[in-house]
Amino acid sequence: MQAPAGDTIEAVVLEQARAAKKASRSLATLTTADKNEVLLAAAEAIDAAAEDILAANAEDVERAEAAGTEASLVDRLRLTADRIVGITGGLRQVAALPDPIGVIVQGKTLPNGLELRQVQVPLGVVGFVYEARPNVTVDGFGISFKSGNAVLLRGSSSAASSNAALVEVLRTVLTEHKVNPDAVALLPSEDRSSVTALIQARGLVDVVIPRGGAGLISAVVENAKVPTIETGSGNCHIYVHSAADVDTATRVILNAKTRRPSVCNTVETVLIDRGIADSALEPIVTALVSQGVTVHGEEPGMEPATEEDWHAEYLSLDIALKVVDDIDAAIEHIDAYGTGHTEAIITGESAAARDFTARVDAAAVMVNASTAFTDGEQFGFGAEIGISTQKLHARGPMGLPELTSTKWIVWGDGQVRPA
Amino acid sequence: MQAPAGDTIEAVVLEQARAAKKASRSLATLTTADKNEVLLAAAEAIDAAAEDILAANAEDVERAEAAGTEASLVDRLRLTADRIVGITGGLRQVAALPDPIGVIVQGKTLPNGLELRQVQVPLGVVGFVYEARPNVTVDGFGISFKSGNAVLLRGSSSAASSNAALVEVLRTVLTEHKVNPDAVALLPSEDRSSVTALIQARGLVDVVIPRGGAGLISAVVENAKVPTIETGSGNCHIYVHSAADVDTATRVILNAKTRRPSVCNTVETVLIDRGIADSALEPIVTALVSQGVTVHGEEPGMEPATEEDWHAEYLSLDIALKVVDDIDAAIEHIDAYGTGHTEAIITGESAAARDFTARVDAAAVMVNASTAFTDGEQFGFGAEIGISTQKLHARGPMGLPELTSTKWIVWGDGQVRPA
Repeated sequence: MQAPAGDTIEAVVLEQARAAKKASRSLATLTTADKNEVLLAAAEAIDAAAEDILAANAEDVERAEAAGTEASLVDRLRLTADRIVGITGGLRQVAALPDPIGVIVQGKTLPNGLELRQVQVPLGVVGFVYEARPNVTVDGFGISFKSGNAVLLRGSSSAASSNAALVEVLRTVLTEHKVNPDAVALLPSEDRSSVTALIQARGLVDVVIPRGGAGLISAVVENAKVPTIETGSGNCHIYVHSAADVDTATRVILNAKTRRPSVCNTVETVLIDRGIADSALEPIVTALVSQGVTVHGEEPGMEPATEEDWHAEYLSLDIALKVVDDIDAAIEHIDAYGTGHTEAIITGESAAARDFTARVDAAAVMVNASTAFTDGEQFGFGAEIGISTQKLHARGPMGLPELTSTKWIVWGDGQVRPA
Repeated sequence: MQAPAGDTIEAVVLEQARAAKKASRSLATLTTADKNEVLLAAAEAIDAAAEDILAANAEDVERAEAAGTEASLVDRLRLTADRIVGITGGLRQVAALPDPIGVIVQGKTLPNGLELRQVQVPLGVVGFVYEARPNVTVDGFGISFKSGNAVLLRGSSSAASSNAALVEVLRTVLTEHKVNPDAVALLPSEDRSSVTALIQARGLVDVVIPRGGAGLISAVVENAKVPTIETGSGNCHIYVHSAADVDTATRVILNAKTRRPSVCNTVETVLIDRGIADSALEPIVTALVSQGVTVHGEEPGMEPATEEDWHAEYLSLDIALKVVDDIDAAIEHIDAYGTGHTEAIITGESAAARDFTARVDAAAVMVNASTAFTDGEQFGFGAEIGISTQKLHARGPMGLPELTSTKWIVWGDGQVRPA
């Protein structure tokens, strides 16, 4: 769907959604072989069009720089020959993943002879709302298409030229393969009204997944009339239990904080059990400080911590640290301030580990391991759509199966239900 | 939680939700044996309190009759000794069902030695919004409690006395068993404001499930800020394919329409393929009419059908009937008017059956079987929470596993993630 001139943005989005719904019907019955062929052809086509895509991206970068956008944001926006190789590599990787469609989840034969199968089917139409990186445009198409879904992409206006160039290539490939090109569409990004139209398109859009900052995510989730999946917000804790090995604790905390501070699985607060504080506090703080981390806490020599620090998702080389009385106090603190993403305990005592994993309410609960492992690729999913922090439908890293629904298929030979 | 006098209804509901969330933490770690003991004790306590419950119900019935409520509604509201036996039987049945909590959905050991398990856990706090029948009050508690969830019940104001009496018994049983009684609470039902407060209690309520008429369901789903599951709306079709056995078609249609016309899996529209209309139309219509069914259609002698009839969820001894050109036309009609509940084809030709089941987008798609089979009990789930017509989280009949989420539990021995 190209946006007809003169229409309101809302009307354009609804028309795109209707076209996507129509396209989704034919995607549902494509074979795995057909889908993989398209994905590999799309990778080739993007490689071949690299020059045009980079030129479009240069426009976006120029506009962003002229507007005085900060360097880190411009960097996320920028495409390079290497990054295009990364993007097409992603498509090839998705082509190689198992097809989640048609998998039989469960089944049985009833006493009356009816044969029941619960089969994985596409959701239908998926909406992605995301920020600067243009690679999400192609990722979003790849995972949606492999799982038989049509996708409506609402990228950032700052990446409008790059996204338009990428989606044009994708739609051309679909047409060449006799697939309805409305299986992928780029929504207008001039203002927020396209997001509003997308998240309220009941009956046309089956799920909207926001990827980006906390503000974007809560705006989408709170105003949506269609189902949404909340992703990514991570105020993760590591609790150093009284029976922890201090070296292990130090190593895990350092890794979870400094490996990539800007991602959602980074640790933001360390809780140290009073029973081990005498021996653990000093080496952990020293190690953090030696790596350039600012420690916010209540002990002498730290940046004084306020209520805000316990809530903070720093995404930087900052960490909050609190000494807690015992495992109950640790779990209470996590209950009060955690976002249900990833929580970890360091302990040598299995009873404490079992207690912690049973009682802590989060997508992932870890024993003696870095919170950095909560990640679709690390979990072996091949592709990651995001990390769900809600409890309905999907929780934790989402792969292709999380973009599916199910359908009961029932075969009989004339069975009727007794009164 | 008892409602403190003087507070606004919204404040009361939020306080109940906070208390439920707190209670849900302890429910999550109850053993199956503990839960079953409570459920059986609750059944006994309700049996023992039958007299008081019937007296409370008599107040509701009297009030309803005085208000001129129609007889069928009063009947749904009325409890009898027999119906109480049904209610407590339901609790005993839930006690006998397998516990969905703790089930390991999948798991693996990563190359670095990390052990991953994805475990079923409770959702947390479940809200039910429902209409007249007081038995849903106890059902809702039973399935929520067995699946480790706290439950907030928002019943009909017409059943307020019955519901209060039932919930009081349940809370007493919980207290006697040293379980936090806030695991079940009855929300105020004077007006709609308690529904609004419930469906907007983000961070406290994990899912709201509306059970009732289409108006109630769409009001809840469209205005909720917490996740919801849409249930029950059923405009179900039976398509009589050109290769159908006419006797089978007639038998199945009669069963699907007349067995219990008021339930959501009843057939509302029959689509007859033009290729078999000559031989199928007359016997099917005659059979329907002989059972007192009014046929709305375009053929001579029928009640003339309008656009409304194709949309109608009659829930009565009415049926719409249309002759369609072929399987494509049948699927197009279902796409346009169906509600994604249950759709059936009658055919002797397996290619047509495979085509229909692959292309029709509904929770259940049946071949040569009555739509009346879409039902949790028929599917062998033991307890049914409702029939989801949405695609996220649950689709089709929902049993206890549909009231769960999952948690990744990861055990290591100090693993850190390489840069």
